[in-house]
Amino acid sequence: MGRILRVNLRTSKYYIETLPDEVLRSWLGGRGLGVYMLLKEMNPKVDPLSPYNKAIVATGPLTGIAGIPLSGRWASITKSPLTNTIHDSQSGGYFGPELKFAGFDAIILEDASEEPVYLWIHDGKVEIRDAKHLWGKDVHATTDMIVEELTPEIGKEEAEKASIACIGPAGENLVRIASIMNDKNRAAGRGGHGAVWGSKKLKAIAVRGHMRPSIVDETSFREVVREMVELIKASPATAENLPKYGTANIVPVINAHGIFPTRNFQTGVFPEADKISGQTIAKEIMDWEKQKKEICWGCLIGCARYTRITKPPFTGEGGGPEYETVWAFGAQTGTGDLAAVSKANYLCNELGLDTISMGHVIGTFLELVEKGKIPSEKLRGLKATWGNGEVLVELVWRTAYRSGVGDDLAEGALRLAKKYGAPELAMVVRGQELPAYDPRGAQGMGLAYATSNRGGCHLRAYPMAVEVLGVGGLVDRFETKGKAVLVKEGQDAFAVYDSLVLCKFIGFAPPIGLSHFARLLSAVVGWDMTEKELAKVGERIYNAERVFNILSFGDGEEYDTLPKRLLEEPMPEGPSKGHVVRLKEMLPEYYAIRGWIRGRPTRKKLEELDLKWLADLLEREGLLPE
Amino acid sequence: MGRILRVNLRTSKYYIETLPDEVLRSWLGGRGLGVYMLLKEMNPKVDPLSPYNKAIVATGPLTGIAGIPLSGRWASITKSPLTNTIHDSQSGGYFGPELKFAGFDAIILEDASEEPVYLWIHDGKVEIRDAKHLWGKDVHATTDMIVEELTPEIGKEEAEKASIACIGPAGENLVRIASIMNDKNRAAGRGGHGAVWGSKKLKAIAVRGHMRPSIVDETSFREVVREMVELIKASPATAENLPKYGTANIVPVINAHGIFPTRNFQTGVFPEADKISGQTIAKEIMDWEKQKKEICWGCLIGCARYTRITKPPFTGEGGGPEYETVWAFGAQTGTGDLAAVSKANYLCNELGLDTISMGHVIGTFLELVEKGKIPSEKLRGLKATWGNGEVLVELVWRTAYRSGVGDDLAEGALRLAKKYGAPELAMVVRGQELPAYDPRGAQGMGLAYATSNRGGCHLRAYPMAVEVLGVGGLVDRFETKGKAVLVKEGQDAFAVYDSLVLCKFIGFAPPIGLSHFARLLSAVVGWDMTEKELAKVGERIYNAERVFNILSFGDGEEYDTLPKRLLEEPMPEGPSKGHVVRLKEMLPEYYAIRGWIRGRPTRKKLEELDLKWLADLLEREGLLPE
Repeated sequence: MGRILRVNLRTSKYYIETLPDEVLRSWLGGRGLGVYMLLKEMNPKVDPLSPYNKAIVATGPLTGIAGIPLSGRWASITKSPLTNTIHDSQSGGYFGPELKFAGFDAIILEDASEEPVYLWIHDGKVEIRDAKHLWGKDVHATTDMIVEELTPEIGKEEAEKASIACIGPAGENLVRIASIMNDKNRAAGRGGHGAVWGSKKLKAIAVRGHMRPSIVDETSFREVVREMVELIKASPATAENLPKYGTANIVPVINAHGIFPTRNFQTGVFPEADKISGQTIAKEIMDWEKQKKEICWGCLIGCARYTRITKPPFTGEGGGPEYETVWAFGAQTGTGDLAAVSKANYLCNELGLDTISMGHVIGTFLELVEKGKIPSEKLRGLKATWGNGEVLVELVWRTAYRSGVGDDLAEGALRLAKKYGAPELAMVVRGQELPAYDPRGAQGMGLAYATSNRGGCHLRAYPMAVEVLGVGGLVDRFETKGKAVLVKEGQDAFAVYDSLVLCKFIGFAPPIGLSHFARLLSAVVGWDMTEKELAKVGERIYNAERVFNILSFGDGEEYDTLPKRLLEEPMPEGPSKGHVVRLKEMLPEYYAIRGWIRGRPTRKKLEELDLKWLADLLEREGLLPE
Repeated sequence: MGRILRVNLRTSKYYIETLPDEVLRSWLGGRGLGVYMLLKEMNPKVDPLSPYNKAIVATGPLTGIAGIPLSGRWASITKSPLTNTIHDSQSGGYFGPELKFAGFDAIILEDASEEPVYLWIHDGKVEIRDAKHLWGKDVHATTDMIVEELTPEIGKEEAEKASIACIGPAGENLVRIASIMNDKNRAAGRGGHGAVWGSKKLKAIAVRGHMRPSIVDETSFREVVREMVELIKASPATAENLPKYGTANIVPVINAHGIFPTRNFQTGVFPEADKISGQTIAKEIMDWEKQKKEICWGCLIGCARYTRITKPPFTGEGGGPEYETVWAFGAQTGTGDLAAVSKANYLCNELGLDTISMGHVIGTFLELVEKGKIPSEKLRGLKATWGNGEVLVELVWRTAYRSGVGDDLAEGALRLAKKYGAPELAMVVRGQELPAYDPRGAQGMGLAYATSNRGGCHLRAYPMAVEVLGVGGLVDRFETKGKAVLVKEGQDAFAVYDSLVLCKFIGFAPPIGLSHFARLLSAVVGWDMTEKELAKVGERIYNAERVFNILSFGDGEEYDTLPKRLLEEPMPEGPSKGHVVRLKEMLPEYYAIRGWIRGRPTRKKLEELDLKWLADLLEREGLLPE
């Protein structure tokens, strides 16, 4: 760990650097390393789509080590053009391990090229190649074309094993909800990272290699791996539900709690939920043969889906749909048509769009139409009503290419709703579209959304696990007490997951958690790591991210909030009827636990986390609280 | 007539020139003037998408003169990237008259800009403006944005009266079947002229003016106009069928003759023809209020359609569909779903695609799939079967943006079929996709297709009028005798229509024809024009075009042919059952009447047409026959 490739896209020069061990131990990799490097190297005020923004691609110290469950991931870290926050977006597939096998732990992408390029990194060698012929091509075509190009150079078999991360037309067109895709159907989806690559004219990164990472203490390593594998095999979530029904296995339970956000969070009950559940997917549209190829590197669970829809008017096949996707294109748009939802999903994969934000924004748009905010000529006769599958497909095309009203959707829900005079209809936190849980029926989730550094997100902390799903215990979901500590600890823990770049589903096999990771790190890297030290790393990362945001746009308590609808409109029906998010009951406690004042870390807290340099930075800008 | 604007797009310089009267009298305007100028100024061998190609925009001597029926048109002339032939594409709306009112009869567009630009021409003034913000925008958005830009400069009312011709994403992406659109829904559709503008980075031309053309002899002018108007009002085609049912009024009669090409010309009978007829359009989807705005400048007929489809999965509204469009997206793809056909039409208008070629190419593609020529991974699960409306919509999107397999469709039917190893499935002449008449049941149409200088076309000569429709008489459609003269005279006459830039529907009010045009020209311009002289102009143009093609790619008898299917596979069913096109029975006679040898004009013929300079050109290249 610690081999960094720095690429200046303007000058086409690259540099290989090594990170000191103390930096690695303090920030691990992935998300943590990303925020560290961006804070060290970049002014957080830069325009995310300017050449001054940097894009980081990073693995973690456990990535690509055979045997470690769920370690086949990678992270993209940059300043988000959707939220202006520090932002990391994580993805599975084969790209992370292959990058490591190719000889690098992370890539820092600097400045912008004038003409489209792609990187080809293999066994320690780096090439910056012309990508003019790839510009405009969709994700699948780009991937196939690069494999074809590599074939005469390294042979068909090797070329087909190369892993390719790329952007589609959406990223090229600077769509603020554009994803980076890898291995065709895996997405670093959220936050518009695809647009950052697009702004740098970076079309793709292809990686392939044979340089295996080493392990310091094989015996301890094997022991902890064996334990973890057993736990994964023993947990119903990881052994049964996820492999059989994918992430969308939870559709029925979420809907049964009345927190499946429907029609842009107007209610939490979607009558057609069963039509888009993981159970229905498994029964009706799965291709189990092709699914095998979709499973991430070294994964024991295999939650990936590969599906096929064969009945017009919606036909196609591809990766997905996931839970968040069936929600975003389904309940959020009032659509119970699994084929339409799947088709929209396939197109997002091909065009390079985040399915969560894309579906969510369509829902925002439909409510704007419903409320009479969109001039009818903008619709060009499109029947933009809840539950019309065609709308999904058409608006995905239009958004990716900024065609017609798609030019507005491409800006994300907040900018869209503002443009049409109804910002209150944007169900966002820090400009990022909320995902598939209505927090009015899960108070902890509300606090997690509100305080998420990258904007509205279910993957910064997941109190759902104990508020609804009963993974590792169960607490009263309508209670606000105790949620602050739950969220704070969850946030710090997930900062560790994302910095080790592990799949969060490993947490669905309790008691797997930081203590196992500490043992793994000790065995692999040779650090004498403890659970406590890891938790502190997580907290360090969370605080550093917040500092980045404060420096970027003055983040603080006025951003630690939720859309008015969730705070003031009681859930109108179902098992969460009558509830709002009682954020004010949780936020003071949260700040107290965090050692923050009005949403900003104090010098004391920062120094405790060995972040004196960030306290100094804040102070210099007059942004340190008290 | 004779004021020419020459714009060099590379240097951003423009020049105003005047054409001598003898050139105008010899070539009239529009199509004729275009081929003259291109032959004079350009090497016919240039790559059509290189900066060396020129694009001409031209009106005619009768354009924009109030009172003259059907004179509200304009022509685009260039070397086609689809066919490599000289190519003219004609369009209605308001653009032609407004260009004239803005002070110019024609524009010669030379070289290519580095960055997107548009032209703004108003009352004799010319501006070359930045169009970077318009690049990527669809036709409707581009039009609206230019109107919005002009509003503060000339006021809302004037800005809204500006007429805008532009390309959509398809033209920008150099799609070989991209159209130039004007007034949103009017198309210079065929031959990929949109790609030529795209290659020059010319996004749009906006025109508006108040400079009215003058008339030499008002009295004679009024007399001939009155006569023509009466004839138009008296003919059932122009007084009844076209205004009531649009061009698609002929769907039932064409299908009833068994010559409505179905599933890529596999048969001539489409069982679902009535579902997509003009009569059904009028009954089910017309918006008569909005239709009024679609009618071309000064038109008495009003064949334009404006329609709306409201039932998912296909909703929308817009101009069309025309006869050729319901055929191309309907019978040619085996689709009897008027909503799907209309949706595909709207998208073509917005994205800037020729509906004939687009629908036709989808039909080619579907037959390639049917015959097992397309590898299944290219389909990505799309159910590419006859009659699936979704296929139309998806492939229109993909073609415009060259996404996935759309990259192949964007090359046109011939290049598509060749790439997948089945060129015989391309139903083209000179690379241009055939339109909506199966010539096996109309021998003259077969000869007209085969000898069309711009490639397979129903608008170079229209023997259908007397072979099937009974306009101005009726002849035996299966007979080959007499068809050569019919086609030759039709071609020469239509060359005159296209050079005066008149709508061909004026010929649906017989006996309106060259004699009326000669009288009109005499009255308006002051020439002592006769029908005979006009016919000679037509013949001159047709021969000049052929010379261009000979110089471009060696045109000659091997190109004067039809797809094998039409020559060798007897029509399998219906009222034209058992017939093939007996081209060999007609072609020698046609050449004899033309004074051509093996498809090439002789020196004698060329000199007779005052084209000695072209005979010299051919001779120098060793291409003069005998």
